[in-house]
Amino acid sequence: VCGAYDTAALARELTLLLGSEQVLAGDGPGVAHYEQDATSARGLRARADLIARPGSAAEVAAVLALCYEHEVPLIPRGGGTGLAGGAVPLGGGVLCSLERLRAIRALEPGLWRMHVEAGLRTREVQRLARENGLCFPPDPGAAEQSQIGGNVATNAGGPHACKYGVTGNWVTGLEAAVAPGELIEVGGPYRKDVGGYDLKSLLVGSEGTLGIVTAVRLQLMPAPAEALVLIAFHRTAAEGCAAILELLAAGVQPAALDFVDGTALRIAAGAWEDGNMEIPPDAEFALLIEVDGTREQAHAAHAELVAVLEPSALELREPDRDALWRWRDRVAGAVSAVRGGKVSEDIVIPVEHLAEALARFAEIAERHGLQGCAWGHGADGNVHANLLLDPHSEEDLTAAAHATDELFALAVALGGAISGEHGVGALKGGQLARQWPPRALGLHEEIKRVFDPKGLLNPGKKLARAPAQQPPTLASARSNPDA
Amino acid sequence: VCGAYDTAALARELTLLLGSEQVLAGDGPGVAHYEQDATSARGLRARADLIARPGSAAEVAAVLALCYEHEVPLIPRGGGTGLAGGAVPLGGGVLCSLERLRAIRALEPGLWRMHVEAGLRTREVQRLARENGLCFPPDPGAAEQSQIGGNVATNAGGPHACKYGVTGNWVTGLEAAVAPGELIEVGGPYRKDVGGYDLKSLLVGSEGTLGIVTAVRLQLMPAPAEALVLIAFHRTAAEGCAAILELLAAGVQPAALDFVDGTALRIAAGAWEDGNMEIPPDAEFALLIEVDGTREQAHAAHAELVAVLEPSALELREPDRDALWRWRDRVAGAVSAVRGGKVSEDIVIPVEHLAEALARFAEIAERHGLQGCAWGHGADGNVHANLLLDPHSEEDLTAAAHATDELFALAVALGGAISGEHGVGALKGGQLARQWPPRALGLHEEIKRVFDPKGLLNPGKKLARAPAQQPPTLASARSNPDA
Repeated sequence: VCGAYDTAALARELTLLLGSEQVLAGDGPGVAHYEQDATSARGLRARADLIARPGSAAEVAAVLALCYEHEVPLIPRGGGTGLAGGAVPLGGGVLCSLERLRAIRALEPGLWRMHVEAGLRTREVQRLARENGLCFPPDPGAAEQSQIGGNVATNAGGPHACKYGVTGNWVTGLEAAVAPGELIEVGGPYRKDVGGYDLKSLLVGSEGTLGIVTAVRLQLMPAPAEALVLIAFHRTAAEGCAAILELLAAGVQPAALDFVDGTALRIAAGAWEDGNMEIPPDAEFALLIEVDGTREQAHAAHAELVAVLEPSALELREPDRDALWRWRDRVAGAVSAVRGGKVSEDIVIPVEHLAEALARFAEIAERHGLQGCAWGHGADGNVHANLLLDPHSEEDLTAAAHATDELFALAVALGGAISGEHGVGALKGGQLARQWPPRALGLHEEIKRVFDPKGLLNPGKKLARAPAQQPPTLASARSNPDA
Repeated sequence: VCGAYDTAALARELTLLLGSEQVLAGDGPGVAHYEQDATSARGLRARADLIARPGSAAEVAAVLALCYEHEVPLIPRGGGTGLAGGAVPLGGGVLCSLERLRAIRALEPGLWRMHVEAGLRTREVQRLARENGLCFPPDPGAAEQSQIGGNVATNAGGPHACKYGVTGNWVTGLEAAVAPGELIEVGGPYRKDVGGYDLKSLLVGSEGTLGIVTAVRLQLMPAPAEALVLIAFHRTAAEGCAAILELLAAGVQPAALDFVDGTALRIAAGAWEDGNMEIPPDAEFALLIEVDGTREQAHAAHAELVAVLEPSALELREPDRDALWRWRDRVAGAVSAVRGGKVSEDIVIPVEHLAEALARFAEIAERHGLQGCAWGHGADGNVHANLLLDPHSEEDLTAAAHATDELFALAVALGGAISGEHGVGALKGGQLARQWPPRALGLHEEIKRVFDPKGLLNPGKKLARAPAQQPPTLASARSNPDA
């Protein structure tokens, strides 16, 4: 039982809608994975009262209608790979898993389009495009687990956002279940539409707090014929960051321009698939760069890269492309494994301040007695700032909370933003107040009320300002139902 | 005097804010151009009570605050090149011209960025980028007159949106004056930001009904080294539209892929700058195509174009690039001149329905006794459907109103949208109700109330549903203050 509603009666109504196999008790067997997302190493877990697994967009709308009628919180869930606790059912309620909405409504390679349901895995979207000579460029981490609906709801990025933009740039239309319980479609199979306010962009990145994305129309592009990668090792972060600015000034457009700092490099060296990635002993920074296009274009850009980077780099290396990006995807796990957990935030700063941001983050981590390391999307000024910790140490978690607080302040002081990819979720509630003036925060909050007057859609998530009742701190969020 | 407010008292307060030279009487000398936009040939004119010309973003916010305090309608105005009456001060009030906000706050070519005020001409933005080896790709018509703030407020497109997207795709941040009278900035000099709901995209394309854009942060890109153009003449629209689909299916990515139908071709042939553009006698359709990139890439794409188009085209021609796009920009004027005016709408349909849309538009025009012709952005399915008319003929205007009504219904029936570039303005008020379900319309209206609770910002524009009091029809809108 939770709040004012009768869980057993609600379960019966949901069962009538979805069938008994698709309505699960939150404390039943085999449902523990619904309690967490990728923040579990930070201790963030919570149990929903009920888990609903609708099989169609219409069923999602019906579940929403039922929750709205009975005033029950409804927490949408995609692949559960989020890094901000956005899909964790804090405060109970009904968790709505989109996993069964996997239909490919239309695949039109000749028109560079795909219309798919929200639960389709990101990797599957990428594969379908590739098998048809096309490309769906967004490449957030954990693509095997994450779902396209969750990518849209968080406006996920990834290394190739450098040239190709984030997920939202590839969404021409979307269908969403909205309060008080119906489906709307905004946008469509076309890229221009100025008839109404841009509700599509408003739903993209709204983290399930304005509506539940049930299907998306994706724009695809012809796959580049060639993609070439390069690793440039630098002696210092400052030199590596200067090299990024030199590349931009030279007019080189990389498809991806990631960086990994020396600490992360050494920790993750063993995660290279054919044994160790050899790190030059003096390297404290590496750039992972991809250029693409026609064969001639990619080779010309590669030559430009080499010309710009050779004077400052310790070493330039040309690894296998797939091996490089698979390794890049493993960096986070390798870093997490050192002490059993990590706190990771992903501030954005104007790219010319990247070196300063990294230096100041290192200073913040050290002052709080934690090992810090960073990687991220260099040309986008998007820093994944990581603090290694023991997730069972209250002291570590508290120190990390103080350090990330300083990190958000730093991002804003450097003219940046509190998050470029991960979103606000539960863990960054109220941090937006550092970045936006009060009137903009008020607009954010009023838009929430317009879409969700009863405040039932993913409550407590993506809050612009700290609520009267504090959002979960790292320490309190760790109070896990099984503990 | 208008409404409940005292115009003379308001003029005194505005004069205190802006100085006497920047506050003009709506019926004073030399202000007639503020009464109209590019819809004047359709007879849409109206006079503001006062014209305010603030010189800074802070002054725009102060004008907004004053209007909000006294409950006076405020109509923002950029270059006045709109095609939907969005900047026409129907109903009086204060017209706020952004023409004096022309500062270049920052031009950072090495970082591919520009931060400029709203009143800077579009051509100037393009020129500044080009002079620094960069490119600002959006290229709406009338770039000499239009202002970047207006381009953002309408999310303007143009031929090169085909590859590079519309204006909003190049805006990373914007500053706007919002009710009850202050400046907010959303986004910034970075391309990723998921901290708050996407207020930036909401303001883009909102036509001055949610706030007044005062400055924009633009993303630029390295200028393509080469751009090659081609005209392909086809015997029929159906063959030309089939060629567009063949190009897409072949994976060719044009920078621009416009079309011009036979009627428009013949009317505008004389507008070619070195005498006549020779139209093959059997041509009823032409594709205007540009491919770009590195030299090798552009030439490779050009060869692909030729290979795909040669079997179906009557003739392929390689004109001078600048001459082609300058001519393209003159087509509308040439068509207007035939009978003194035209009604032009710009529906969007999924590209595979382009041939059907054109055929059905021709049938609609004929049935209403008007000469119709069409051009537009082929690969985007964005049709500029034009009806030639005598702007002094009530009969013509009424026939055009009925025909465009059918045109909007056709767009929606084919799975499209009522406008791809021009927006809703005053002339398409309520047409969105054909396209969106009631709940989405309600969200649109509630968002308006959130931003503008007193309904003073560009009132009567971008209405999702027809108001209780009808929006101006073509005929009634023609009732010009000087008539």
